Amino acid sequence: MDKIKLADYLFKRIQDLGVDTTFGIPGDFALPLYAAQDRLGLKTVVMTHEPSVGFAADAYARLRGFGVAMVTYGAGGLNMVNPIGLAYAEQSPVLVISGSPETRFRDQKPQLHHCVKHFDTQLNVFAEVTESQSLLLDPKKAQVEIDRVLDTTVKTSRPGYLEIPRDMVNIDIDVNERAPKSVEGHSAALKQAIDDIQTHLQAAKQPVMFVGAETRRFHLKEKVVALAEALNIPVVTSILGKASFPESHKNFIGNYFGQFGNPKVREYVESADCILSLGAVLTEMETGGYTAKLPAEILIQLTSNEITCGHRAYNGIDLKSAVDGMLERFSSSSKNNTNLPKFTVPQIADEVIMSSPNVKHLTVAGMIEALNAHVNGGYSIISDVGDCLYAGMSIKTDIFIAPGYYSSMGFGVPAGIGAQVATPERRSIILVGDGGFQMTGLEMSTAVKLGLNPIIIVFNNGSYAMLKHIDKQRDYYNLQRWDYTALAKAVGGDGMQAQTKGEFEKALKAAHASNKMFLIDAVIEDGDISPTLRRLTEHFGAKVRASIS
Amino acid sequence: MDKIKLADYLFKRIQDLGVDTTFGIPGDFALPLYAAQDRLGLKTVVMTHEPSVGFAADAYARLRGFGVAMVTYGAGGLNMVNPIGLAYAEQSPVLVISGSPETRFRDQKPQLHHCVKHFDTQLNVFAEVTESQSLLLDPKKAQVEIDRVLDTTVKTSRPGYLEIPRDMVNIDIDVNERAPKSVEGHSAALKQAIDDIQTHLQAAKQPVMFVGAETRRFHLKEKVVALAEALNIPVVTSILGKASFPESHKNFIGNYFGQFGNPKVREYVESADCILSLGAVLTEMETGGYTAKLPAEILIQLTSNEITCGHRAYNGIDLKSAVDGMLERFSSSSKNNTNLPKFTVPQIADEVIMSSPNVKHLTVAGMIEALNAHVNGGYSIISDVGDCLYAGMSIKTDIFIAPGYYSSMGFGVPAGIGAQVATPERRSIILVGDGGFQMTGLEMSTAVKLGLNPIIIVFNNGSYAMLKHIDKQRDYYNLQRWDYTALAKAVGGDGMQAQTKGEFEKALKAAHASNKMFLIDAVIEDGDISPTLRRLTEHFGAKVRASIS
Repeated sequence: MDKIKLADYLFKRIQDLGVDTTFGIPGDFALPLYAAQDRLGLKTVVMTHEPSVGFAADAYARLRGFGVAMVTYGAGGLNMVNPIGLAYAEQSPVLVISGSPETRFRDQKPQLHHCVKHFDTQLNVFAEVTESQSLLLDPKKAQVEIDRVLDTTVKTSRPGYLEIPRDMVNIDIDVNERAPKSVEGHSAALKQAIDDIQTHLQAAKQPVMFVGAETRRFHLKEKVVALAEALNIPVVTSILGKASFPESHKNFIGNYFGQFGNPKVREYVESADCILSLGAVLTEMETGGYTAKLPAEILIQLTSNEITCGHRAYNGIDLKSAVDGMLERFSSSSKNNTNLPKFTVPQIADEVIMSSPNVKHLTVAGMIEALNAHVNGGYSIISDVGDCLYAGMSIKTDIFIAPGYYSSMGFGVPAGIGAQVATPERRSIILVGDGGFQMTGLEMSTAVKLGLNPIIIVFNNGSYAMLKHIDKQRDYYNLQRWDYTALAKAVGGDGMQAQTKGEFEKALKAAHASNKMFLIDAVIEDGDISPTLRRLTEHFGAKVRASIS
Repeated sequence: MDKIKLADYLFKRIQDLGVDTTFGIPGDFALPLYAAQDRLGLKTVVMTHEPSVGFAADAYARLRGFGVAMVTYGAGGLNMVNPIGLAYAEQSPVLVISGSPETRFRDQKPQLHHCVKHFDTQLNVFAEVTESQSLLLDPKKAQVEIDRVLDTTVKTSRPGYLEIPRDMVNIDIDVNERAPKSVEGHSAALKQAIDDIQTHLQAAKQPVMFVGAETRRFHLKEKVVALAEALNIPVVTSILGKASFPESHKNFIGNYFGQFGNPKVREYVESADCILSLGAVLTEMETGGYTAKLPAEILIQLTSNEITCGHRAYNGIDLKSAVDGMLERFSSSSKNNTNLPKFTVPQIADEVIMSSPNVKHLTVAGMIEALNAHVNGGYSIISDVGDCLYAGMSIKTDIFIAPGYYSSMGFGVPAGIGAQVATPERRSIILVGDGGFQMTGLEMSTAVKLGLNPIIIVFNNGSYAMLKHIDKQRDYYNLQRWDYTALAKAVGGDGMQAQTKGEFEKALKAAHASNKMFLIDAVIEDGDISPTLRRLTEHFGAKVRASIS
């Protein structure tokens, strides 16, 4: 048994998880934590506002498997509830570390600054939006509690919460060697499940693999690619799962978003006779507002929470074991024994959303065209919500990060920074509406501070376009027009405005050539939206309008 | 019994409370609420980001007695936890109204967008930061629940929370006439308390009245002024209570902030032989980090939560009744019978913090001097936290709004907008550090949209100055330098930079002459802080530094 300072144990464990940078804002209750991480050589990115801290740590976590958001008590922690709620909903393994008042105050109950009702207010709040929580009050339990929260965060790919009083940070704790993890073995249930999946596939003529975000969250991307190749099965991804399967892969045929996405992809998926759904949690968004057709009879559904094949469910099997089991059964070396039919991958054209050459002003279609001509493996696409997300679905990319399920605005710019910190070899292209940009866009200053050069594309249509299209034009859907390029320059970046497709292409070239953070103010023709958003608002608009009158 | 739509009942009650404008951001789950308030002629201010919504509604509530923040579910509500926590801590009567998914979904439990763990996540979170809450699921209980939450919000001057599913907004509810409120009468306990207070005052030679924020929250300002005049007692205010007593009044002698404030005020208060504390909740901040000397023997303490005189406590008396009782007993007409000594009000000079004429660069002292020469009854002062708040304590004003207890950064700019919406006859002067401005400062765009002309003064010292002074210089306390005046212009306002006192005076004059929102980028000499912050950081620095090493 060794003695070590609590913070040293925590930050070393975090480093062992592959984290080299945390995100946060210091505040008086968190200063000992900040000094400790500094002492241990862990870098930190100080953001401008706590909502951005959560979004940046989330993007980092999606790409690196673990992210850390470190803030002060009350004014810090309570300002990060929404992004951590988002990370919970979308299964991103973000650890929140919050400082808090000294343990001795807990008996005296003084009314300290940053306190709301009582000392446990923040802990109780975070219990609602994290998978595991601990308030570290007892040095004897510190290791066990830290291990529990970190292990749960990794295992469930959901946020965890550690609150550390100021006098606990540098306290000596006893540390025991951690017991090695038990290896989850193949079970009889797993064999049964794989047998049944094999039977379904043997009977299939036109199967399709539907890949969701969990395959990325649980680090199964390469195995899923190998499985798709072994089966030679066509692959579609969900909205949250976009780019969880490489879009440049020959088996990839598009994104499936129920009746809102590319009609040709929809037609293919909905005429399939077997759907092998991998890591796609069937939320409202993943199913295109429940318009997706995924009949139980032909659905093989594998997520971290359930394994089903047709109407049969299998207990006690985790997603990774299921994928491993399938890969073992269907890999080329053993495939000869499975009697699987030879499947074919169809050619499905991208939806034609080319802008008409007669249109003078910039359109969303024109932006997609230009971006598809421009984006290559040196870029990641990070999107906010709104039409930038639906347009973004049409951009071919292998890294795409967006809050496609929880749908919180303000994610784009801070997440784009977090993504570039996580993968410095890729430049972030950030797609963001003017509404989302007005929430957190000035965070671009942090990119300048770090010497990062994301390209920020503001979809400037002067309104909450989605609300306008599901309801009708109302004054309170209008947004102020900001001089976005002037803002970029005022914080040390660069930028250009584009009002035509030609100007947009020119701006993209300038951004590409620039080493600086570069903002493109894309002024979109009034009322112009992507085909996906048009289909979506037509569907939801009727319901929303009925509820208004 | 009448039938009325739920939203109509709610918004009419809100209008009856004197509210003509709500603050918020629309989102799909809140659209029926937005349409309903529009139909009823209630104006709304759409802000850019939910944290700002909470701060603006808070400032409006402090000035008008009730404020409303209306948002969508999840991404909206959960993004407002910190400002509502602030409003709870500082007793501001803000009503949060959130839309939410239709009631029929609650049985089906689908995973809708903006949902975290389950449908009650947001309700549970807000239970931690509001005094009363209700999720309106039953038309039969709607009136009772709305009344309960609104009445509690007014009575306790703490936030309330109403969550209204989309299909409940326009549902018909039965409405009964409300029972008239019972008038709280004088009790025997009240007479006993006033007798004891009279005895204490009769024995006093040098009493002082210590006025806190609750006198404003419970609309007692005019009565407290009358009481001070009747007693001819000198008056000091607390940090959160600043300007709760008019600073131009002849009985006002300064702000008392324990050992951190004006030493001459401190000396006078700490040599007093009777302290009549009215509406000052003795939190960490109100007591200057518990350095204030308020010995129980000589303390008469009246708040909404407790009435004590020396070591005696009195139950069942509310603050208003206590003030009414004192006013009745001590008013000039009846004072002859109370045998009170004739007290005198001392002349206490403001702390000399004049900037040295030799200093070339702008200092905090120079800004205070210039502002005191400039501020008059046409202005309100709204402050963020940090040295702008401590400097702001030295500005003479009759309206001063700041998060002096909870101390959340980011309050200043949105609260300054909320204040000017609440009292259009007064122009807001917003004091904000560069750290606070970088959180929510772009909200100034909303002032431009509304045609408001606040003056925003950015204390630009390129750092989280308070953290640097309670710890030491570290890289992560440095802030990016933004071109703040360019930002103001980019959103349609105007601005000037000031690097010397002369330039600051010139900028103030230009701001005064301008009809636009006007930002002054006040570039402060490095390391220059107010005397109050210097004393405060010397006191807390030792503790913080000890916890770091």
